[in-house]
Amino acid sequence: MVTEKTFHLKLQYTMLDIFERIKQNPGPLGQFADYAEGYFVFPKLEGPIGPRMKFQGKDVIFWSANDYLGLCNHPEVLEADAKAAAEFGMFYPMGARAMSGETQQHQQLEKELAEFTQKEAAYLLNFGYQGMVSAIDALVTRHDVIVYDADSHACIVDGVRLHMGKSFTFKHNDIASLEKNLARATKVAEENGGGILVITEGVFGMRGMQGKLKEICDLKSKFNFRLLVDDAHGFGTLGETGAGAGEEQGCQDQIDVYFSTFAKSMAGFGAFLSGDETIIRFLKYNLRSQIFAKSLTMPMVIGGLKRLELLRTRPEIKAKLWENVKKLQDGLKERGYNLGNTNTCVTPVFIEGTTIEATLLAKDLRENYGVFTSVVVYPVIPKGMILLRLIPTASHTDSEINETLAAFDGIREKLTSGHYREMEKQMNIEYKQM
Amino acid sequence: MVTEKTFHLKLQYTMLDIFERIKQNPGPLGQFADYAEGYFVFPKLEGPIGPRMKFQGKDVIFWSANDYLGLCNHPEVLEADAKAAAEFGMFYPMGARAMSGETQQHQQLEKELAEFTQKEAAYLLNFGYQGMVSAIDALVTRHDVIVYDADSHACIVDGVRLHMGKSFTFKHNDIASLEKNLARATKVAEENGGGILVITEGVFGMRGMQGKLKEICDLKSKFNFRLLVDDAHGFGTLGETGAGAGEEQGCQDQIDVYFSTFAKSMAGFGAFLSGDETIIRFLKYNLRSQIFAKSLTMPMVIGGLKRLELLRTRPEIKAKLWENVKKLQDGLKERGYNLGNTNTCVTPVFIEGTTIEATLLAKDLRENYGVFTSVVVYPVIPKGMILLRLIPTASHTDSEINETLAAFDGIREKLTSGHYREMEKQMNIEYKQM
Repeated sequence: MVTEKTFHLKLQYTMLDIFERIKQNPGPLGQFADYAEGYFVFPKLEGPIGPRMKFQGKDVIFWSANDYLGLCNHPEVLEADAKAAAEFGMFYPMGARAMSGETQQHQQLEKELAEFTQKEAAYLLNFGYQGMVSAIDALVTRHDVIVYDADSHACIVDGVRLHMGKSFTFKHNDIASLEKNLARATKVAEENGGGILVITEGVFGMRGMQGKLKEICDLKSKFNFRLLVDDAHGFGTLGETGAGAGEEQGCQDQIDVYFSTFAKSMAGFGAFLSGDETIIRFLKYNLRSQIFAKSLTMPMVIGGLKRLELLRTRPEIKAKLWENVKKLQDGLKERGYNLGNTNTCVTPVFIEGTTIEATLLAKDLRENYGVFTSVVVYPVIPKGMILLRLIPTASHTDSEINETLAAFDGIREKLTSGHYREMEKQMNIEYKQM
Repeated sequence: MVTEKTFHLKLQYTMLDIFERIKQNPGPLGQFADYAEGYFVFPKLEGPIGPRMKFQGKDVIFWSANDYLGLCNHPEVLEADAKAAAEFGMFYPMGARAMSGETQQHQQLEKELAEFTQKEAAYLLNFGYQGMVSAIDALVTRHDVIVYDADSHACIVDGVRLHMGKSFTFKHNDIASLEKNLARATKVAEENGGGILVITEGVFGMRGMQGKLKEICDLKSKFNFRLLVDDAHGFGTLGETGAGAGEEQGCQDQIDVYFSTFAKSMAGFGAFLSGDETIIRFLKYNLRSQIFAKSLTMPMVIGGLKRLELLRTRPEIKAKLWENVKKLQDGLKERGYNLGNTNTCVTPVFIEGTTIEATLLAKDLRENYGVFTSVVVYPVIPKGMILLRLIPTASHTDSEINETLAAFDGIREKLTSGHYREMEKQMNIEYKQM
């Protein structure tokens, strides 16, 4: 006899079809697809890449490319890319680096990257995301403990997810919290006969704060750990020579494994690791995503050599970038905007408001002021906050900066008068009347 | 007082420095670095890519590029790549697909890939390895069970490693073992209210056997599961239209999520997934390595459209590939070589012998016969076996095939006479006398 209890148990114990679940739950971002696709997610920017592009047929000043140095359409870069593609195509070299993907040019770029980042050796990665995942995976065993910043990029999080041993997060950029967690980690590492790997970022790309690398390195006198730094946004933009956040803070030599993507200042894709010769050699032989997947394509290697040459020999490009950063950030601050604690090129504008207000505001900026920024909302930042994220580059001109500041003057008035809040209310009334 | 026992305990409970361990243990492949680097691992092939390249200054017939259709240096492909690189550089489009990396061309290539693989929709991946890892990660929750072939590629293994729920392997290409594990998985899935994802490959790239897709699909009448297939080596080479192993076996419509890299027949990098519209849309919004990393670069997208056009419109290229496969495989079989159970283009030559014999043999082939093949040893294949792996392409000529067969005649005699075994003995004697 089926009682109510057995009936419920039966329901609970029924397997499902994975696709049925997927159809019912499109995921945290997917739930907004119908509303946002093509505009807030997967927007299609058109025309030649640069500070002015076309969005939905209209000209916009474009602030969402991490092309800090404006190298993406630098004539020498385009020429190098095109020449290499004509000679080698996109397939060369053939397979995984260890199998048939080694070339003189790969070795040359590694030599130059090592030198540029003040390390003994470097190793190219076919893609940054999986390179970081595999680097974390290769550096630790199940006996080791990972301690990492709670705001770390997804590729760090995925790398840590592969770790079979213990891991602790420390509060974002909070040295006291790191210290507390290093004490916990030391206890576990001692019990397991393992070591400790600390992971953080040179620059946190959303809010623009540098990781407190100097203070983290200083903890080495108190704790036994190795430090891996993802300096995606610091490489090429920070430090006297552009060697990144470690150089900027005077502790580059204390970073044990340095990582940067080519997808920001280097205006390309792929990435590299640098550090001591023995450690880089170990990584070369033990990164699963590199041993079992294709070598970085030749045009990006030859194009990479050209980009790095420009980083080294044209300091005026970085100077121009910082001139633009200062103009934009000062202008926004003068207008009363809250830029949080950014101490990098990343320019976050924090505004109070709901998610709906955020979309109305971003849309107003795009449609009526011709200014395209990324817009970030909860859960990436706390509820009730809106983050408009601008990435100034060396290519932006004064007129583009001034037009953008004028646009922020315009929305300032609307923010003060409650224009977007009013629009949201109106929308809600109309929605209820439907 | 420190007794012997507490002394040992103390030793056991000391933490270590991660770098010290790395210096002491270079890893499974790294331990051979001094002996093998530059020759057996990280060999540098030089000159224009193709069936004849230069290795250490000598001409070799090159059998290690997965460029099945010979598209890597097809003039139309090189032209498309170079034109796109000149127009767009390597950075375009700017960021992650969802942020600022969407273009008309990406959508067009997806439309054509979906059609080509007989699916409703497709989604481009910035790199195959991390794309597969994230696809597995996104398809399952901790309630689900993964059942996968024990010989699966590293990217599948890494994807499964991220899974928080249960996973079972089945014996390589063994349907009875799969059935047994599906029964176990069903029990667990019922207990957890989860589903089952089966993962296998269209072609196993080392030994060249097709995954038994048809027999796996037939199990759907008995078990409730979804099937994800990595068809890296099947796409473009198998099936009437080149749609891959599923088409070849008449069960393409039963593959729920189809995956292929562009790093084989498509002579490039990057990859794609195809399947039902709703599922692809879900993946588009939920693949961490795509949401948080740069979109596939434009030259590979425009170059990809050209490659796919050639796949569709020049059936003579695939015909030529198979003509070469047949000549090479028949020639080797006639000479008494054991090619295992390959039923694809992958041409594995299995020889009995030690690892040292394998290296002597491969070196002899390269130095004295001008034939460059990959050489695979334990632990990838059982101890006492050597695998020479040849990848015929549409670009290889009759003379290259005949020269290679003549080389295999030459080493046949040496194998029969125990030449390499004798050399190994001699080496051991000299080594002991040192």
